[in-house]
Amino acid sequence: MEQISADVAIIGAGPTGMFAVFECGMLKISCVLIDALDELGGQCVALYPEKPIYDIPAHPAIEGAALIAQLEQQIAPFKPAKLLGQQVMSLSGEKGDFTLTTSAGKTIEATAIILAAGAGAFGPNRPPLDNLSAYEATGAVRYYVKRREDLRNKRVVIAGGGDSAVDWALALQGVASHISVVHRRGKFRAAPESAAQLDALAAEGKVDMVIPYQLHALHGANGQLSAVEVADLDGNTKHLEADVLLPFFGLAMELGPIAEWGLDLAHHHVQVTPSTLETSAPGIFAIGDIATYPGKLKLILQGFAEAAMAAHAIHPIVYPDKALHFEYSTTKGVP
Amino acid sequence: MEQISADVAIIGAGPTGMFAVFECGMLKISCVLIDALDELGGQCVALYPEKPIYDIPAHPAIEGAALIAQLEQQIAPFKPAKLLGQQVMSLSGEKGDFTLTTSAGKTIEATAIILAAGAGAFGPNRPPLDNLSAYEATGAVRYYVKRREDLRNKRVVIAGGGDSAVDWALALQGVASHISVVHRRGKFRAAPESAAQLDALAAEGKVDMVIPYQLHALHGANGQLSAVEVADLDGNTKHLEADVLLPFFGLAMELGPIAEWGLDLAHHHVQVTPSTLETSAPGIFAIGDIATYPGKLKLILQGFAEAAMAAHAIHPIVYPDKALHFEYSTTKGVP
Repeated sequence: MEQISADVAIIGAGPTGMFAVFECGMLKISCVLIDALDELGGQCVALYPEKPIYDIPAHPAIEGAALIAQLEQQIAPFKPAKLLGQQVMSLSGEKGDFTLTTSAGKTIEATAIILAAGAGAFGPNRPPLDNLSAYEATGAVRYYVKRREDLRNKRVVIAGGGDSAVDWALALQGVASHISVVHRRGKFRAAPESAAQLDALAAEGKVDMVIPYQLHALHGANGQLSAVEVADLDGNTKHLEADVLLPFFGLAMELGPIAEWGLDLAHHHVQVTPSTLETSAPGIFAIGDIATYPGKLKLILQGFAEAAMAAHAIHPIVYPDKALHFEYSTTKGVP
Repeated sequence: MEQISADVAIIGAGPTGMFAVFECGMLKISCVLIDALDELGGQCVALYPEKPIYDIPAHPAIEGAALIAQLEQQIAPFKPAKLLGQQVMSLSGEKGDFTLTTSAGKTIEATAIILAAGAGAFGPNRPPLDNLSAYEATGAVRYYVKRREDLRNKRVVIAGGGDSAVDWALALQGVASHISVVHRRGKFRAAPESAAQLDALAAEGKVDMVIPYQLHALHGANGQLSAVEVADLDGNTKHLEADVLLPFFGLAMELGPIAEWGLDLAHHHVQVTPSTLETSAPGIFAIGDIATYPGKLKLILQGFAEAAMAAHAIHPIVYPDKALHFEYSTTKGVP
């Protein structure tokens, strides 16, 4: 079993976990990044690599993939170890001396832990349909669209009434050969401007609105979809010809093994002390979307700021005898 | 007297105050920016426009002026009113209905206030020398260097033993015709790498180290400097030929009129509730370097995150009857 040592094991390599490498590195704290995905970037690359983000300070607009590329360059001088495509399976030990094992058979010794599992700790809510997993395996049913081009000339059925359903109905215009939107009621829980755009497309015949209907069954063979059957509240059904179904019913929190670590949780989030980001377990910190405290906003920006605070709170654990001399990056520079 | 109305009056137009315009704007909260400087950007443009900053997330390195240019572009869609080159002189009213007046004779009506006065609330510690203000007026004595080129071929005396003194002794190499560093003891409170670089330059004769000496007098006429007189602890003096003196003795907190607004202060900083950034005065919020709370780090990044939290906390004051529907910027877009 291969063994790796670092001052801090960061669980989750999305933007928040990546930036924690930078903030720790500036304080001469070494890190290992662990993620279930096989690349850095978390949901930014998995869910919306091509979507512009507008609220990263000093980036008027930046796409998810570009944000991650910038962060990768920023943390490169600190040469973090990266354990990708594997999940943390077990945690033992205590503050100052933790041991983690991963699904790829690695063992990690770390002085402190940062949980930055964010959306990595979430899974999609799956619709209760027969044979669903066979269609998921082929990508005929998928819960996110990594590249629009993957759906070029496909007949796409979108199910759901929130932002994701509406956004993708708009974003796949001119890409998919046919788009249906299945929702059980007429009102969408989406940004009003986007919902208005969808109504306009429906009026032009560019989207079929299948309302009020719910998903009922999948038809096809060998994981290849031919039609999605939908039903209204009276049990009347109809078939929608389809190559791909995109169900957008939100995310379910799946803390996985983390749920068994005895951390204080609140509504499936990990409670932390705001001034340090430390969880109820000494030496284990949580930042980003997985962490909660009064006033918490689920913004990437907050995760970045939390990474800085957690790194400063971890410094005395890693260097118990060394006072931290606060310095500005302009003065200190980077390695 | 010209009158301006906005949902929020932001006092201080450095990076934190600027980003507050963005975060408020995304929640449809209008802002007016007020600053004593006659341009946006605060200390980023006044103190280090050409210095790279390394710890802005997703900017591996960005100079102060470039950071401000990016932020200016990011807030442009929200068209904030700007009252520059003027100070806030008075504040009256209460949460929901504040009135401010400025030194340029403007009156501002605002629902809430954000103090983002940061380094604008600081002034340099001035050395106790005769006729100092005459030399300050001409720039012969200055406390920051806006453009290195302004010191091209000048004989420069730098006084102080901290990061600024050491950094500028390094940064003016090849620009100033002669550099002396006056410090009362041999040890510098600067980043070890920088102090080592300074020692190396001194060994090569590229910097004169005037140690252990203190500033004693300025010589010259009509605000033009000819020499800086220094004294050791025994009272022995010597003259250093000079065109410019740069005293770097740190910053003194000057809260100005803000000190009289009855806010809870702690060591010259404004105490805030971390979850909202609200001060002890309802409706008045403080973010960035002027604000303090447990775990506070004086990083631009923290100011950005605080701006987001303050904007969300201000929303119910501006829109008391409207629930805030949390949305990601990727979904919502910008105007």
